[in-house]
Amino acid sequence: MDSELLEFTTGGRLTTDITAAAADFCRGRGDGLLQVFVPHATAGVAIFETGSRSEEDLELILESVLPRGASYLHRHGSPGHGRDHVLPALVAPSITVPVLDGRMQLGTWQSVVLVDPNADNPRRQVRLSFLAG
Amino acid sequence: MDSELLEFTTGGRLTTDITAAAADFCRGRGDGLLQVFVPHATAGVAIFETGSRSEEDLELILESVLPRGASYLHRHGSPGHGRDHVLPALVAPSITVPVLDGRMQLGTWQSVVLVDPNADNPRRQVRLSFLAG
Amino acid sequence: MDSELLEFTTGGRLTTDITAAAADFCRGRGDGLLQVFVPHATAGVAIFETGSRSEEDLELILESVLPRGASYLHRHGSPGHGRDHVLPALVAPSITVPVLDGRMQLGTWQSVVLVDPNADNPRRQVRLSFLAG
Repeated sequence: MDSELLEFTTGGRLTTDITAAAADFCRGRGDGLLQVFVPHATAGVAIFETGSRSEEDLELILESVLPRGASYLHRHGSPGHGRDHVLPALVAPSITVPVLDGRMQLGTWQSVVLVDPNADNPRRQVRLSFLAG
Repeated sequence: MDSELLEFTTGGRLTTDITAAAADFCRGRGDGLLQVFVPHATAGVAIFETGSRSEEDLELILESVLPRGASYLHRHGSPGHGRDHVLPALVAPSITVPVLDGRMQLGTWQSVVLVDPNADNPRRQVRLSFLAG
Repeated sequence: MDSELLEFTTGGRLTTDITAAAADFCRGRGDGLLQVFVPHATAGVAIFETGSRSEEDLELILESVLPRGASYLHRHGSPGHGRDHVLPALVAPSITVPVLDGRMQLGTWQSVVLVDPNADNPRRQVRLSFLAG
């Protein structure tokens, strides 16, 4: 299994499209599974359409599901940070994508997206692993 | 890795049980991981009990988490379609199932279910891949 | 693929940290993917921080997303049990973790957690599988 830890600049944004880096990683590898893993406790990885403002819709939905202003028992970090730690239970930090002939088999409108509500950390790592099969 | 793209008729329903097709795909393949992937930007794949009305309960919960009547920034398609594009961040379009001796190791009450709130597309594709191990 | 079915005592709690058992299972296995699968229809598996009360925050969030007091169509079990059957669509019963040199590549604050709101079953099974690569 080939595995690489990449670093991305999120710039404090909730979502960062990492499709291009994932495609680069898979190129030339033949058939197998790509595993995308975020080794951070406030982040997840999702597959959805980017570039049509669904990123902002996700932000609004997450604000309603995990209200920043609610009272959280988790006490580290800035106020509201507790919600960031619940996010990975709903947007998991791990996903797999089928790869054929070195290409992810994403649909036309699908992107691989790092989701991290923790604006205090503007740089994030993502581990890409390829299991050939 | 063997991989097949199957087509399912959802008939505009939110959920389509695809367990039988997944079981057929795994039969005879020995041990490994089944990967189920939906190459659509408004769909997810879930594992839960079907046939006891949990499909309708899921529909009610998704209506409360992703209200059709809310205001979404995503502007393509019919009104409320924006929520369909947020769904895959919460119900991911990718899941793996352990397979032993050609049989998915599902619990008694678990089914593999395509979840797609986009009633405008009554036919959907699902990619099944098997990574032997 | 090596695969084992382990049993955990949840004691009726929503969350059970199974990181130590997963680490034991991976030890000595080299590189590959760990697949964690819960063969129960009311349970999921998540990766998030434990020990800083995020477990309780998750419980509060799930109570708001899946209110116990709401009306569910699923009629088996005790009242409110219907919500337990929707949970796996949001907290999936399946997740993979990259493993290098027999060690899960979790971040410092990440734990592997069984999530089961069904307090009627104080013992739960989890299947751990390792696909070498």
